[in-house]
Amino acid sequence: MKALVLGGDGFCGWPTSLHLAAEGYAVTIADNLSRRAIAAQLGAPSLTPIRPIEERITAAKRVGDVEFAPLDVTDPVALQALLARLTPDVIVHFAEQRSAPYSMLGDAERRFTVANNVNGTNTLFSALVELGQRPHVVHLGTMGVYGYSDDLGELQEGYLDVRVAQTGRDVTIGYPANPGSIYHLTKCLDHTLMQFYAKNWGFQITDLHQGIVWGTDTAITGSDEALINRFDYDGEYGTVLNRLVSQAAIGHPLTVYGTGGQSRAFIHISDTARCVHLATGAPPEPGSKVQVFNQVAEVHNVGALAQMIADRMEAKVTHLDNPRKEAAANALRVSNAGLRSLGFAPHTLQDSLMDEIAATVGRYQDRLNRDVILSKARW
Amino acid sequence: MKALVLGGDGFCGWPTSLHLAAEGYAVTIADNLSRRAIAAQLGAPSLTPIRPIEERITAAKRVGDVEFAPLDVTDPVALQALLARLTPDVIVHFAEQRSAPYSMLGDAERRFTVANNVNGTNTLFSALVELGQRPHVVHLGTMGVYGYSDDLGELQEGYLDVRVAQTGRDVTIGYPANPGSIYHLTKCLDHTLMQFYAKNWGFQITDLHQGIVWGTDTAITGSDEALINRFDYDGEYGTVLNRLVSQAAIGHPLTVYGTGGQSRAFIHISDTARCVHLATGAPPEPGSKVQVFNQVAEVHNVGALAQMIADRMEAKVTHLDNPRKEAAANALRVSNAGLRSLGFAPHTLQDSLMDEIAATVGRYQDRLNRDVILSKARW
Repeated sequence: MKALVLGGDGFCGWPTSLHLAAEGYAVTIADNLSRRAIAAQLGAPSLTPIRPIEERITAAKRVGDVEFAPLDVTDPVALQALLARLTPDVIVHFAEQRSAPYSMLGDAERRFTVANNVNGTNTLFSALVELGQRPHVVHLGTMGVYGYSDDLGELQEGYLDVRVAQTGRDVTIGYPANPGSIYHLTKCLDHTLMQFYAKNWGFQITDLHQGIVWGTDTAITGSDEALINRFDYDGEYGTVLNRLVSQAAIGHPLTVYGTGGQSRAFIHISDTARCVHLATGAPPEPGSKVQVFNQVAEVHNVGALAQMIADRMEAKVTHLDNPRKEAAANALRVSNAGLRSLGFAPHTLQDSLMDEIAATVGRYQDRLNRDVILSKARW
Repeated sequence: MKALVLGGDGFCGWPTSLHLAAEGYAVTIADNLSRRAIAAQLGAPSLTPIRPIEERITAAKRVGDVEFAPLDVTDPVALQALLARLTPDVIVHFAEQRSAPYSMLGDAERRFTVANNVNGTNTLFSALVELGQRPHVVHLGTMGVYGYSDDLGELQEGYLDVRVAQTGRDVTIGYPANPGSIYHLTKCLDHTLMQFYAKNWGFQITDLHQGIVWGTDTAITGSDEALINRFDYDGEYGTVLNRLVSQAAIGHPLTVYGTGGQSRAFIHISDTARCVHLATGAPPEPGSKVQVFNQVAEVHNVGALAQMIADRMEAKVTHLDNPRKEAAANALRVSNAGLRSLGFAPHTLQDSLMDEIAATVGRYQDRLNRDVILSKARW
């Protein structure tokens, strides 16, 4: 089975690519390395010394069948040439600008995020139509497409059963989009776009609405220095739990936005890789709507999480004015029944895994740029 | 009051711009003339001899305060320069590729339609954020965002009242997107995008979900040969009623797709101009969601419409395999309460207005290219 991983050099893409290779897929990683370029522009390269892509690939060949193809997914000519050569069985689509704060920095970032993410997804599906290829496409979505309101009950997977007031009819509708940033917006747009491609051209598509990823290495990326995964601690790209542990490890106050009353869904990076693998093997029936799985392990309150880390690591918590427009506090309940039915057994927040993050930060703290700890984005 | 009309050289944009000027707006028409370029590429220029933009503008100055600015709305530098100079009170956004069949022709057309329409809308709002401008933005949507199903009852304006099965709570949600082509998809994406800009940056936005426009001239465009509106009869850009009357006028069988059981909403071009003017003067409250009006006059069954035209003009009807993926027949009921509450008194299908179309076609039939009557798009 041949897997094409678009964006396979990124934080989630790299460990997932290696996991798929270890599980027997022939993996082609396609990436334009834009994440590395943006990190350099922001003065916030990966805390871990990730290797140049060539070295990574050489080391990855010891894990399984892995090759690299330089590709900008918005380039239709290069993309079609690659697809025609590969004829992949499954495509995993990570090739999107994935930071909410970055997408809110200014005009250039708003336009780049929409153009890269939406045009990239459209270019991909349009190319597949042109070539007559119908691989299973697994797209990385986000829990953020739902918004963070408990009004609609426990978050089901992508769809909502409602009774229409006007007619009294019971119908199942796509979950109403309620994005909280330009980045989250693009995932809502991608979803609507993929629904049309599924309906009109019969694509089998899975959209994984993922929680906030934490941790850095998986068993595979941790097994070889040349395979080490990237680690972002900065205000734009560092995800909240990783940021908080990094701050504690270097004696910086833990920065909580607003009251800290926000509840969010989390998943460990090793589970990201496992879940994507489970999803690749379980395409929806041909002719179905987009299959949605909530790719989350557990829900935590951000303020409580910060306090727990502060207590363990003898650090202080400080509350900043919330740069985001969001509710000061919210309840959150999430179903992850789909991936569980495929065998997903989540790794939940454990001291040992948090210790691993702290140890990583301790090991590389000379590389840490304190000037980029705070987010510059304002909503 | 200053109005900026993006896409003001097009079929709807031109008569609307003149109407706004006649009503006292200082109008800037911004356009990259892409509609003219695409028509030339397709071998289907306007049947009516529309004038070069410079001649149009010279003549328009006799109607009111009108100027022209060449602009590609996806060009952020040019767009921001224009906005900074104008500081418009209202922006009417027609600058989108507006043909469903064209958007389904192939890879290049799918990509152009998404890139032009979605990036254009995002570039516009992002520029307004950057400049701190908050004009009322009136966007042209389409009835096609709703899909053509009677399951949800009479189509309300943009929103749907439902009871969530899981929680029993009554909520109002955005109408579920159900586009029938890449073009219609882009209007769904625009809508979700505008909801985010309204929510996060407090924009006042009106989305006009317009029916199928028919007719060619308004009182103003018909008053001066140099102001004549464009008329499309081809399979890609000709709207259904205009296409059928054109076919009858030249002795071509009236081409109905499939059974002709489709019901669609219609509006005359002069009502388009009037409705947009009404909408410009009625922005939603600041802090509101996007205000949606269904810009339609009446609903007709396509097969019955074709038969009526055939009977009147002594022509024949022929049924073609439907190139589109759509229901063979559908019921359709549409509320247009919003615009009616502003004073909209629809012009409905009248013999005299149809005679006007037939007369226009008769007058210019030497310019008609019979090779482009049938659509080349297949869904």
